[in-house]
Amino acid sequence: MTDAPGSARPDEPVTEPGLPSTARVEAFSDGVLAIAITLLILEVKVPEVDAPGGLAHALADTWPSYVTYLVTFGVIGIMWVNHHALFERIKVVNRSLMFLNLLLLMTISFLPFPTALLARYLRVGGQDASIAAAVYSLNALCIALAFSAMWRYLSRTPAVLADGFTTDMARTALKRAAIGPVIYASTIVIAFINPYLCLACHAGVALFFVLPGRHTGGR
Amino acid sequence: MTDAPGSARPDEPVTEPGLPSTARVEAFSDGVLAIAITLLILEVKVPEVDAPGGLAHALADTWPSYVTYLVTFGVIGIMWVNHHALFERIKVVNRSLMFLNLLLLMTISFLPFPTALLARYLRVGGQDASIAAAVYSLNALCIALAFSAMWRYLSRTPAVLADGFTTDMARTALKRAAIGPVIYASTIVIAFINPYLCLACHAGVALFFVLPGRHTGGR
Amino acid sequence: MTDAPGSARPDEPVTEPGLPSTARVEAFSDGVLAIAITLLILEVKVPEVDAPGGLAHALADTWPSYVTYLVTFGVIGIMWVNHHALFERIKVVNRSLMFLNLLLLMTISFLPFPTALLARYLRVGGQDASIAAAVYSLNALCIALAFSAMWRYLSRTPAVLADGFTTDMARTALKRAAIGPVIYASTIVIAFINPYLCLACHAGVALFFVLPGRHTGGR
Amino acid sequence: MTDAPGSARPDEPVTEPGLPSTARVEAFSDGVLAIAITLLILEVKVPEVDAPGGLAHALADTWPSYVTYLVTFGVIGIMWVNHHALFERIKVVNRSLMFLNLLLLMTISFLPFPTALLARYLRVGGQDASIAAAVYSLNALCIALAFSAMWRYLSRTPAVLADGFTTDMARTALKRAAIGPVIYASTIVIAFINPYLCLACHAGVALFFVLPGRHTGGR
Repeated sequence: MTDAPGSARPDEPVTEPGLPSTARVEAFSDGVLAIAITLLILEVKVPEVDAPGGLAHALADTWPSYVTYLVTFGVIGIMWVNHHALFERIKVVNRSLMFLNLLLLMTISFLPFPTALLARYLRVGGQDASIAAAVYSLNALCIALAFSAMWRYLSRTPAVLADGFTTDMARTALKRAAIGPVIYASTIVIAFINPYLCLACHAGVALFFVLPGRHTGGR
Repeated sequence: MTDAPGSARPDEPVTEPGLPSTARVEAFSDGVLAIAITLLILEVKVPEVDAPGGLAHALADTWPSYVTYLVTFGVIGIMWVNHHALFERIKVVNRSLMFLNLLLLMTISFLPFPTALLARYLRVGGQDASIAAAVYSLNALCIALAFSAMWRYLSRTPAVLADGFTTDMARTALKRAAIGPVIYASTIVIAFINPYLCLACHAGVALFFVLPGRHTGGR
Repeated sequence: MTDAPGSARPDEPVTEPGLPSTARVEAFSDGVLAIAITLLILEVKVPEVDAPGGLAHALADTWPSYVTYLVTFGVIGIMWVNHHALFERIKVVNRSLMFLNLLLLMTISFLPFPTALLARYLRVGGQDASIAAAVYSLNALCIALAFSAMWRYLSRTPAVLADGFTTDMARTALKRAAIGPVIYASTIVIAFINPYLCLACHAGVALFFVLPGRHTGGR
Repeated sequence: MTDAPGSARPDEPVTEPGLPSTARVEAFSDGVLAIAITLLILEVKVPEVDAPGGLAHALADTWPSYVTYLVTFGVIGIMWVNHHALFERIKVVNRSLMFLNLLLLMTISFLPFPTALLARYLRVGGQDASIAAAVYSLNALCIALAFSAMWRYLSRTPAVLADGFTTDMARTALKRAAIGPVIYASTIVIAFINPYLCLACHAGVALFFVLPGRHTGGR
């Protein structure tokens, strides 16, 4: 929601005519991600009790809602950091990048739905819990693929890259980003083995990226 | 949510006393559009199942919710780009532009309602599906008319135009923008022929504007 | 969501230590108002039909939802312009202004509730419709009083005023702002005479402020 | 949602490669807090009446919803001011601070849930009201602990501190911040004595911080 300092210099053209500037696209994206992450709590519903004194029990039963809230909050938090790291490499947003970015935001903004779905059906167990976990993982896979599509486009389009960032570097980033789709595709399979394990994997991936001191060097 | 770089120079008056600056009006509008686009997912409701194991089927039945989500996300995305392109031409926001812009935001912020309506009644079929699709198209028509009203005002008010943008150019933009109301008025008719076709038309219009490489020159 | 250009000069102190800058408080307030105005559509609920083919009728029956949406959208839009005009007069935000501003945002953010209340009970008629309209008017009165409290504080605290804005000017603004509480207090009475007339008054006030060309000079 | 003026100077490195700048992290956080505070009203539900003419009574019965709205609005408002005061002390955001800040936002964004819970069960009374008040207090405790963790990190990491802010000063701030967890832990106990008193304590703490003129010197 602010100019990325240094992302644009007044003396170079950073905007295609008729298209928003890179800073503006990033600010809009930041807004969408901030809203998506904050809307998550609306899916945690106040439980009704069967008899007076039953609230403690009812709240304990709602634990999948809290866990999926925490995990998805972490996932969107990471996506926000990744999104920023990606846009730091972009000098000018053209029509293709606008399209790819809208696609990416669309997949991230969708996450509150599978989050609510998983919270609702995890406790139910059986095939329905697996289906819900698989839908969640499928959504995560789509996000990872949208990120990869962005890096792939950068690796082939030197004209849009920030100064000092080359297509070779974008290709390296693309290779590193390729682990995302692989991991999330695996979680779809894991969903059918054990939906709890699937959710634990998503939590693990989020923690791996978020926890400090685990990986040195660039993200 | 940021200053459009170069949209204002400190040495020229860009604000009527007591009115927000152009950059501020655009930032507020960006915020409203970012929220409207992210709220859409709240209308995709978690389905309830009749019997254990029925979630896969219930999710498949919910397809109109996903499709209307995707289409409206694309529609608001385009509106955001169009809105920016329009404000790039404006040097100073006066009371009339404030009013026209509020009207435009009002019509775009309304879209989550017909989106949910269409998602709910498309599967039902019959006359109700047509009515829902017609309401959706009517909302889109109102947005297009609000855009046209903005361009029309610009074509008659040289005092508010950005440097290098003339009323002649605004008149050209108004003519090009006039296709919007025509298309969306047609979709109201198509809604009564076939609501699915109507939704497909909205998807097609969104794709036409969003997909890169389809049209050269300015938007 | 951006710095108001010219609202702060780097060489003067515009922030009390530990408190956000004026620009930041205004950006936060802009965010809150943009969210409140966009959330309104969530209160317009998709109607259920009793029998196939009944959607057109059900939608027509929902008209109070559309009208209250339009009116409240206009009301919050005006509040946003008024809020900006007020902050333009403020050089430095101190603890008192932080408190008064939070109070003001609290009253504006509350509006979606009486809006939904009025939409639900206007059609019901009788005493309940009057009560709903009175609650709506009471909320508007609270907003107007919060604005007056702000202007009153400015008229007594020269230290926080922007350069060129005097306590005398603030006193004039306070007198002009005093019409707000008077009008909105009247609408509470009107609510018990006729709730439809009450809603029409709110629409009229919004139009009076929003429509261009009706009043010359500052707002 | 804007650059904190003076928070970064162009000639010093304020960003770790691949991580958002301090200003950007704060803008994102501002966005999340603005959304959380505005979403609160969605938890105030329009009451249904049993018989015509019953709305006044039904609205009076809903008083816990209004009170919890007011209190939580105040609580998040304070958290926003505290968050800003904290980030004013930070020159560069590293991976650890990103993690701690996400944790903090996660706890604040959760507040709408216990707010709705308390509004729903306060009137019910008995053990359920106490449980609801305790959950609310527990959430507040988590927020206070997240703030303390931030100050603790600052007191040990001179490299991230803003110019003129020393680890000694951070240690003083940490000691002052330590009163938060103590107060909020006490409110958990008070919840089981009397849930109304517990809510009154939260209101009191909010008023103490928000009301001007009660405490001189820094917050």
